[in-house]
Amino acid sequence: MTTRVVRSRDFPVATRFGPGAVLLYDRSLSRRVPGFAAWSRTFPHRVAVAAGESLKDADRFGDHIEPIVRATTGRARSEAVLVCAGGGSVGDFGGFAASVIQRGIRLVHVPTTWLAAVDSAHGGKTALNVGGRKNSIGTFYPAERVCLVRRVLDALPDPRAREGIAEMVKIALLDGGAWAKRFLASEDPRDVLLWRHLAAAIDAKQRVVDEDARETSGHRQILNFGHTVGHVIEAHDGVPHGRAITQGLYFALAWSCRRAWLTEADHRRFAAALARLTGDRMTGPRAPIPRARFVSLLAADKKAAGAARVTFVFLHALGSPTRRRVPIEAVADEAAFLGWVR
Amino acid sequence: MTTRVVRSRDFPVATRFGPGAVLLYDRSLSRRVPGFAAWSRTFPHRVAVAAGESLKDADRFGDHIEPIVRATTGRARSEAVLVCAGGGSVGDFGGFAASVIQRGIRLVHVPTTWLAAVDSAHGGKTALNVGGRKNSIGTFYPAERVCLVRRVLDALPDPRAREGIAEMVKIALLDGGAWAKRFLASEDPRDVLLWRHLAAAIDAKQRVVDEDARETSGHRQILNFGHTVGHVIEAHDGVPHGRAITQGLYFALAWSCRRAWLTEADHRRFAAALARLTGDRMTGPRAPIPRARFVSLLAADKKAAGAARVTFVFLHALGSPTRRRVPIEAVADEAAFLGWVR
Repeated sequence: MTTRVVRSRDFPVATRFGPGAVLLYDRSLSRRVPGFAAWSRTFPHRVAVAAGESLKDADRFGDHIEPIVRATTGRARSEAVLVCAGGGSVGDFGGFAASVIQRGIRLVHVPTTWLAAVDSAHGGKTALNVGGRKNSIGTFYPAERVCLVRRVLDALPDPRAREGIAEMVKIALLDGGAWAKRFLASEDPRDVLLWRHLAAAIDAKQRVVDEDARETSGHRQILNFGHTVGHVIEAHDGVPHGRAITQGLYFALAWSCRRAWLTEADHRRFAAALARLTGDRMTGPRAPIPRARFVSLLAADKKAAGAARVTFVFLHALGSPTRRRVPIEAVADEAAFLGWVR
Repeated sequence: MTTRVVRSRDFPVATRFGPGAVLLYDRSLSRRVPGFAAWSRTFPHRVAVAAGESLKDADRFGDHIEPIVRATTGRARSEAVLVCAGGGSVGDFGGFAASVIQRGIRLVHVPTTWLAAVDSAHGGKTALNVGGRKNSIGTFYPAERVCLVRRVLDALPDPRAREGIAEMVKIALLDGGAWAKRFLASEDPRDVLLWRHLAAAIDAKQRVVDEDARETSGHRQILNFGHTVGHVIEAHDGVPHGRAITQGLYFALAWSCRRAWLTEADHRRFAAALARLTGDRMTGPRAPIPRARFVSLLAADKKAAGAARVTFVFLHALGSPTRRRVPIEAVADEAAFLGWVR
């Protein structure tokens, strides 16, 4: 199914989703986003949740899904619509819920973080956590519509914009189209940049997803660019996803250059763009990570306790990524070379 | 994906499923089926469960899926195989688990009841219950293989065979092929009949499923033949599914005849076959059901609290069913006419 991405200044009109619409929303939005509370009340059914990883906990799945099942009971599958307003956790849980209620009802995302607007609301991955294993279960279930609402995204404080920009730099480096060149060279402020390039960045991700929607060929793994080491830093330092991915991108660029995939000139150019756009320079983790810890976090991220290798995404040139199976120890060696591991 | 149905005298060899195989099984099988315990120990991973509706309770989903997630951690999706040995509840839960772990690992069913062997292991519907609403969530996820093991099915006591035969009569009436005519006219004992016509009955169901795998056209609803009123009796009287469906089939045949869809001669012939094959004559519910209760159970079964109509499957002739939207009150009128409702 093709997802329709719609940009608008204001909230989509609730009645357009019909009498079977259920709004699932991050309860903090009523406080944070002007007009949100009034908009939420125009829905025939509303389910407020506390956003965050606990929403994705399989142990609480029954509690969390019950009000949505109740609200959609008596509706034909074609009439029941779950509209998810929130960031990554609300989208992951809500997408999963929509994919399984009556074996699949309609799904609309209204992302309320830049990270969700740029990345997680698109591509159809839903997820829950089991026994602390992040995203260990889920479904492939693209939303029929993603509504990008200027009024919501403009209400975000800048650090949240920074979250989104790292993913946008990632997709720009992978895609390399005209939009990506303009974006990487731009000196505009982040919020202007994000809004201006949002549609192109989403299209670029969607092209990758369309080639490998259910992760069978492996091509979709290129979206993991910057995430292999980024996830280690996110888990170890407890920093926000966007900050960690920025460091992961520095790492991937540096290693691509050291392996002579990427020229020195391109490396300098892309690293400079990353610094300018995200506002974060290359620092690595807060302090060097003990090597054993680094290796075990890498293996855990690959959901492979005893795995010896991971798929690492390198960059040849703008728009030319390459996937390679590399020994986990080789990743650790490179991290040690950069002083990120001790 | 096409499901391969394999009949064999003995258990499939565990090693053929590879090192990533996890056996999910009804723990009572070790006691009930000779050789089961020894076979289960040949799997690299085993997860024993208590079969029954509580296995499908969304409130306990985290607990139930955790050992399977743990056992498949570190396996590629193409290597992790969940082999589900059990009846309907094990298949419904296990199928759901396999469909969501890593967004879909491999799935094999080894049905251990006739009901599962004839019906529920085929067609790819998985299900859990939310807040007491039966099968309110689930996925469409056909097994890659269904292993029908003579040694297991022969170990079943006769009442369980009776469970399966009602579903087999249903599919025979819907399909009407040469096998169905032979089956409906046969005087053989039930276990002989079941085994002899199993492959043909499964093929007949699969042809219906293939036309409407994800329940979009509505054609698949013909499989609900006999189930509309059957489910009411199952819920009200607490009788086993097969017994209730037998009564539901009597009802559907009688109403088809009264509406002049079905000739008197065909009605007599099919009702006689149903009686002979299942060993259950037409009795209706244990005692007449209060009309308000009958109506509310019908509406609940359609997952439609205030629904005024249900889709009812009538029979024109052998192999010629027809779906009609009928008022719930009309179903109650017919039940009152038969003395099943007061």
